[in-house]
Amino acid sequence: MKYCSECGEKVRISVPEGDNRPRYICSSCQFIHYQNPKMVVGCLVEHEEKVLLCKRAIEPRYGLWTLPAGFMENDETTMQAAQRETQEEAGADVEIVQLFTMFSLPHIDQVYMLYRARFKEFAFSAGSESLEVDLFDEADIPWDEMAFPVISESLRRFFADKKSGKYKIHNGAMLKKSEMKPGQQTTSFSVTVLDDD
Amino acid sequence: MKYCSECGEKVRISVPEGDNRPRYICSSCQFIHYQNPKMVVGCLVEHEEKVLLCKRAIEPRYGLWTLPAGFMENDETTMQAAQRETQEEAGADVEIVQLFTMFSLPHIDQVYMLYRARFKEFAFSAGSESLEVDLFDEADIPWDEMAFPVISESLRRFFADKKSGKYKIHNGAMLKKSEMKPGQQTTSFSVTVLDDD
Repeated sequence: MKYCSECGEKVRISVPEGDNRPRYICSSCQFIHYQNPKMVVGCLVEHEEKVLLCKRAIEPRYGLWTLPAGFMENDETTMQAAQRETQEEAGADVEIVQLFTMFSLPHIDQVYMLYRARFKEFAFSAGSESLEVDLFDEADIPWDEMAFPVISESLRRFFADKKSGKYKIHNGAMLKKSEMKPGQQTTSFSVTVLDDD
Repeated sequence: MKYCSECGEKVRISVPEGDNRPRYICSSCQFIHYQNPKMVVGCLVEHEEKVLLCKRAIEPRYGLWTLPAGFMENDETTMQAAQRETQEEAGADVEIVQLFTMFSLPHIDQVYMLYRARFKEFAFSAGSESLEVDLFDEADIPWDEMAFPVISESLRRFFADKKSGKYKIHNGAMLKKSEMKPGQQTTSFSVTVLDDD
């Protein structure tokens, strides 16, 4: 952000009175431009032991696999956003079963929410943002060609819950290595999770 | 939004190629300014059958009661946001127990998330945005002086779950009367909820 979206003059970065964080503030009209995390919402669609994956036709991670998901829009609910993204990217009309994962990704200012879902009618096809859409058994999932760690983590938890016979709601955070405290595990992401019982 | 935050020129509203929604687009540099919902995150702090409420010292709803909650910031997780807001507004250092409610409020482009929490150390005090902070039994909650329907709804569900002996995770939406379909209930808000079992 370089200019004020209210008056068009230059913004500066400083801590407003009574606040404790630097914000973009207009040098002319003094408008404070807050910036907040975005929600990425999608579906984990299950059908006969398989899940629906999309091969990305867009950057970032062109050609890699993911779940149908995208930025939540204004004027919709989280569930509507999950259904819309699944329709747009995977051509699938689904009903929501239950919230499955909600992971904060503070290094990119996003919160990922994935819902378990099932087909209302069995049909899917690649939308404009997907090269290919298909159903995969756990054993056939292209684990080495997944686009995002948060999606791989969600899929691993899905198949683990499936085996255990009980789907939890997993709420946590994926932190980059550089954000971890000493003694935390040394994979590229650390996952802290508060599972419901 | 009137001006482009990238170059300072005027924005227009139109549907970008390949998109299906009107966006703010810069007339000069063509930058597309997406707008997305914000998350409001807070805590339902329980202590010996009572919950911690704050009397608002700011608009909107000055002088009415609410739970400690506020806009999630960049560079933090949802749980950190909930703890920070509880510290700022209620002077309470809490640990998160579990996600309790996640309600979409599409008419104001917000998603509310409330966590059940408990004191790490028993202490609370009014922060700069609160006139007063206190613990309330269910019977003593000032139901007629609550600031936001989403908070009242969350508190009602909290006490109902408490009586049932099992806290669920409640995920749904609160829709304004004007957003409801024919035949839906006629209170000022309709709540659709997907409770976990």
